[in-house]
Amino acid sequence: MREVYIAGIGQTPVGEHWDLSLRDLGAQALNAALADCKTETLQALFVGNMLSGALCSQENLGALIADFAGFIGIEALKVEAACASGAAALRAAYLAVASGVHDVVVAMGVEKMSDLPIEDTTAALASAADADYEAAHGVTFTALNALLMRLYIDRYNVKKDDFAVFVVNAHKHAKGNPNAMFRHPVTLEDYANSPMVAEPICILDSSPVADGAAAVVLCSAEKARSLSSQPVKILGSSLATDTIGLATRREPLSCEAIRLSAQNALKQAGVKPGDIDLVELHDAFSIVAALSLEASGFVKEGHALPFALEGNIGIEGALPCSTLGGLKARGHPVGASGVYQVVEAVKQLRGQAGETQVKNCRLAMTQNVGGLASVAVTHILGI
Amino acid sequence: MREVYIAGIGQTPVGEHWDLSLRDLGAQALNAALADCKTETLQALFVGNMLSGALCSQENLGALIADFAGFIGIEALKVEAACASGAAALRAAYLAVASGVHDVVVAMGVEKMSDLPIEDTTAALASAADADYEAAHGVTFTALNALLMRLYIDRYNVKKDDFAVFVVNAHKHAKGNPNAMFRHPVTLEDYANSPMVAEPICILDSSPVADGAAAVVLCSAEKARSLSSQPVKILGSSLATDTIGLATRREPLSCEAIRLSAQNALKQAGVKPGDIDLVELHDAFSIVAALSLEASGFVKEGHALPFALEGNIGIEGALPCSTLGGLKARGHPVGASGVYQVVEAVKQLRGQAGETQVKNCRLAMTQNVGGLASVAVTHILGI
Repeated sequence: MREVYIAGIGQTPVGEHWDLSLRDLGAQALNAALADCKTETLQALFVGNMLSGALCSQENLGALIADFAGFIGIEALKVEAACASGAAALRAAYLAVASGVHDVVVAMGVEKMSDLPIEDTTAALASAADADYEAAHGVTFTALNALLMRLYIDRYNVKKDDFAVFVVNAHKHAKGNPNAMFRHPVTLEDYANSPMVAEPICILDSSPVADGAAAVVLCSAEKARSLSSQPVKILGSSLATDTIGLATRREPLSCEAIRLSAQNALKQAGVKPGDIDLVELHDAFSIVAALSLEASGFVKEGHALPFALEGNIGIEGALPCSTLGGLKARGHPVGASGVYQVVEAVKQLRGQAGETQVKNCRLAMTQNVGGLASVAVTHILGI
Repeated sequence: MREVYIAGIGQTPVGEHWDLSLRDLGAQALNAALADCKTETLQALFVGNMLSGALCSQENLGALIADFAGFIGIEALKVEAACASGAAALRAAYLAVASGVHDVVVAMGVEKMSDLPIEDTTAALASAADADYEAAHGVTFTALNALLMRLYIDRYNVKKDDFAVFVVNAHKHAKGNPNAMFRHPVTLEDYANSPMVAEPICILDSSPVADGAAAVVLCSAEKARSLSSQPVKILGSSLATDTIGLATRREPLSCEAIRLSAQNALKQAGVKPGDIDLVELHDAFSIVAALSLEASGFVKEGHALPFALEGNIGIEGALPCSTLGGLKARGHPVGASGVYQVVEAVKQLRGQAGETQVKNCRLAMTQNVGGLASVAVTHILGI
């Protein structure tokens, strides 16, 4: 198995892009990633996307984006793993380079969610849950996460308002990220007054529906030396699953897919949670941020809130989280988020993260979660 | 890069399975493939599917099927490349084993198309074309193929009724395949009287909308020796693309994606078109069968009809095609068809094809096409 490196990164701003279609967003991110490492060719394109069929009546995104970006003929396909589609595409691209079949490929995530009324988007997002046994009863994805949050609050006897720490942190970090959707600060008072969506989840617990695309150029060690002065190595890569429905989980708060994928990726990289300099968490909802920290082994179960409240997740903390805004403040174009996370981690590892640069950043974890943590993809990146 | 083998195959019958959902179909094929090579474990599952989001309100098929089949925790994701999704999933699975990351994985194709009214299915199938510049004008996928067929008839001055040869051949071959949807013979008279769908494409030119799932167990050389007495080797594998829309093709009848993927796969296998003992063609429409034979290099452009009419595509012919019914008569559950093709080719290579067994069959080509040949995946299999 060959070593795999990231040589180039590209992204579009996250937001409501009324004037840009899937192909525009995808080609912009792809061309930005290629320009970033001054390369003009790629052998394959792996497109992470969840909702293009339901929301844009468009499948076949591999051919669509390869064509529009001017790379007619190359290998190109779409990868879907619910909200973890972006990182799953990165994983597939990683395997293509690791195999020796390709030397230079692009992993991309792209999503366009703002074209249809929000009720259509909400219905489409529920396709990440169990369509026959969960969504068929009318439960939304937010409502399913609310069940987890309520259980967490009850089990560990914590205050709902303590979850604000993840939101305040994410918005604070997004301030200097020109590609983030929400760059305004959020206060504890804002959080306390935020309207409920599905109790106890309020609007400020929730990442926004958005459009966007991000891309990374993956390559062999040999190519990395010629394409980049600061190649980032993929030290660990793992995708794991769990039961698709909540009802069949032995322990809904344990998130076995996250635990497995983090454990496998850390093991492959030969590092421990304590060695990680920053983590890009899947903070689609505040509760998912808390559960991810626990299942990944950074803190024991039930200890995420005190850990965060003690200042550990800020830029100067022991484990900086969501360092460029996270899903919460950068925005969550679902199939693209996993690749945005990697783009942002690479910026940190290169020392290009601007006002939220983490000092002495050598080792990053990115973690993209799909469904009710029915799928999780963890990567360990090092420089 | 490691060598990759196929050790086990499984499939459900193709048809209208009102009583089976995506998870049922997927798990049946998966378990059949594992049982076929007496193995009870797999490390990863690559699910080819195109329409589950649009037609079943279900994404996240990797987790869904891994869970229901009893393999909670494994790596599992969905791959989409329009009607070539099945073979694209096989390609991704191939890369996973070739890389050395996994030793035993399953590539599956699954599709459930019969639950919604046919107009919804027709609209969803158009998402394989260009949603903004083709489907938005109301053109169906059949109508786009009709443009190709009309151009072909005009360019080469052939008779529409001569295309019947592909249909008669496919139905003849399906007779002994218990998993085929249509096992009745079709005569030249039937074809001549077949009602028009989109002139010149008639009903009998068209493969049927259907439900079904097929799966293959892929493994390393070492595992293949212990799992199968007749392992089939993947000698060549290639996925290529073309412009997504017909209007931007330099030459609409040339099918560059098919040409490229066939050329690359043959080159990797170190064989020529004349060495191939049978080909499982993407005969979704008769015109696609003709164009595929030409673009793959079996005959020159414009020569597919005389080649077929001279008896070359039958079981005793120079190049047996669609030997267990093809998409036309076995049925075309779109995201599954590419894996059905491989299952059937493996049956031939093992000598298990029953009354349509091709004699001395050592080398097979399977070719799965998506969109208006905007994506094509070719595999060369040998025993």
